Amino acid sequence: MPETRLDIDRIRAARRVIDPVFLNSPLYRCEALEPALGCAVNIKLETANPVRSFKGRGTELVASLLADDGQGAVVCASAGNLGQALAWSGRGRGLDVTVVASRHAPAAKLDRIRALDARLELVDGDFDMARERAAAIARRDGVRLVEDSLDIETCEGAATIGLELADAVPSFDAVLIALGGGAMATGVGHVLKTLAPGVEVICVQPLGAPAMTYSWHRRRVVTTDSTDTIADGVAGRCPIPDVLADLLLVADDAVLVREESIIAGMRMLLGHAGLVAEPSAALGIAAILEDRARFAGRRVATIVCGGNVDMDAYLRWVDAAPGT
Amino acid sequence: MPETRLDIDRIRAARRVIDPVFLNSPLYRCEALEPALGCAVNIKLETANPVRSFKGRGTELVASLLADDGQGAVVCASAGNLGQALAWSGRGRGLDVTVVASRHAPAAKLDRIRALDARLELVDGDFDMARERAAAIARRDGVRLVEDSLDIETCEGAATIGLELADAVPSFDAVLIALGGGAMATGVGHVLKTLAPGVEVICVQPLGAPAMTYSWHRRRVVTTDSTDTIADGVAGRCPIPDVLADLLLVADDAVLVREESIIAGMRMLLGHAGLVAEPSAALGIAAILEDRARFAGRRVATIVCGGNVDMDAYLRWVDAAPGT
Repeated sequence: MPETRLDIDRIRAARRVIDPVFLNSPLYRCEALEPALGCAVNIKLETANPVRSFKGRGTELVASLLADDGQGAVVCASAGNLGQALAWSGRGRGLDVTVVASRHAPAAKLDRIRALDARLELVDGDFDMARERAAAIARRDGVRLVEDSLDIETCEGAATIGLELADAVPSFDAVLIALGGGAMATGVGHVLKTLAPGVEVICVQPLGAPAMTYSWHRRRVVTTDSTDTIADGVAGRCPIPDVLADLLLVADDAVLVREESIIAGMRMLLGHAGLVAEPSAALGIAAILEDRARFAGRRVATIVCGGNVDMDAYLRWVDAAPGT
Repeated sequence: MPETRLDIDRIRAARRVIDPVFLNSPLYRCEALEPALGCAVNIKLETANPVRSFKGRGTELVASLLADDGQGAVVCASAGNLGQALAWSGRGRGLDVTVVASRHAPAAKLDRIRALDARLELVDGDFDMARERAAAIARRDGVRLVEDSLDIETCEGAATIGLELADAVPSFDAVLIALGGGAMATGVGHVLKTLAPGVEVICVQPLGAPAMTYSWHRRRVVTTDSTDTIADGVAGRCPIPDVLADLLLVADDAVLVREESIIAGMRMLLGHAGLVAEPSAALGIAAILEDRARFAGRRVATIVCGGNVDMDAYLRWVDAAPGT
């Protein structure tokens, strides 16, 4: 069992706190994808829930603890999905939720955050600037700050996906996980290394937002000056040291993929699987496309972790050559 | 408990026979759809499985019984989804599967039937002609014929969706069910009328394929000469008397919707819910769109029963005005 900050018993217990609407998401082999990919492809689908991403698993834990603790308010920075999920979980528990996001985040994500009764504050900058602003609000107002990937609940909530993957019979040879701040990668990775240590844990990040992958390979935090990717959900510049330390213990590899592979992945998920994936959710398919030889004939699972897209942009991406 | 051909204990037992990959499909409230529809909309999603429709629930029962009975072959007529599901379930049990379909069925459905190792025979005609041809093959070859909606397993398999809907707390005011041959409508309707009799069971069919709806309203079988709808999954002309008799006992209403409402439904499911629905799977949303007053403020569930589309046609349908 890897010596991360995560705990398998707490992760198991988390299943009793998380609204069941987020648990036991579909997991199925999608043979229609396989001729083009050359391996057995299993989809773990995290988009068929009220917030269309896996983030509800973590925010259910966060909001539940805050409510038990008598807290009335919470603030987070978000690329869009965490904020939407925290708004959903907080609303159900009477919490006053503030979300700080980039003005450049997909409008669909920002609209849903507002629709779920959260206060939305926009910054003229990227996700890491939103993080700074959220921290400042928390200090100013004396409100609890939720930090994605650093707060253990965000990792252990996401880790419940790992429990569901580890239950699969037969087991997988490799699991592909989108890598951003690292909550999902460390969470799912911790569970797999604990319960199914033979499964290769592969993190996937865009070449245009490579900070955590560089950090993993160099075994120390590497920051970048900017990001340039359509995968808004994983576009961070400043890895968190504690999260990197955990990731070093549970990931077998971290790879980078090109933008055109991400688009091809979205197109394949739509055309062959009938699934709307946001760019971050297509990273796993992109990784297979870029290294078919590595996965040839193996049993692979990929987490389709979110489906919140601006539909105009999405249709432009996939429409160029649908179904290919 | 309605006196149909169906039996609630057999339906409960069916859950132990059906591959779990088809059971406990996502059921969640989709608030993003609600401003446009004016009611609380709950999605029962039957597309996130290996055959992208609810039909696997029934074919698992069929194939399991055939295998237990030592049968080696089976033939069915299909609009596309039943054939794909029977091919999947039959392959897993070593059955030789023949599917008869219309040459005009969506290519995506026909391709998947072939890919799942079934023998595909095409007829120059519609679904009801495929039914005649499948019956002739069964007689000629002495092979078991599976008749969708007539064979009780196809109804009781679909009925397991009803068990999952009846478990929902709080319950729904109305459930909208696509109506074609009637397997899903009688199956889900039987369970709801047994376990949650207060729930209004509303069947929805296209104006361009109204035979079963006409039959339900006149309480006798009414056939039509032709069909004219994009909802290929429910385009039948010749209702089956036994199925109509059951439907009369479990449906509270049967309504017809226009093609443009079906397209608007698909567009809304994509734009607001991120879901790829085939035309038949958008019938419930279409029914709400055509009669907002009837559903205003009520808790409604609709079964998104399939997602097998030809992507070119689908993108033409939804692309006209995405997100509206």
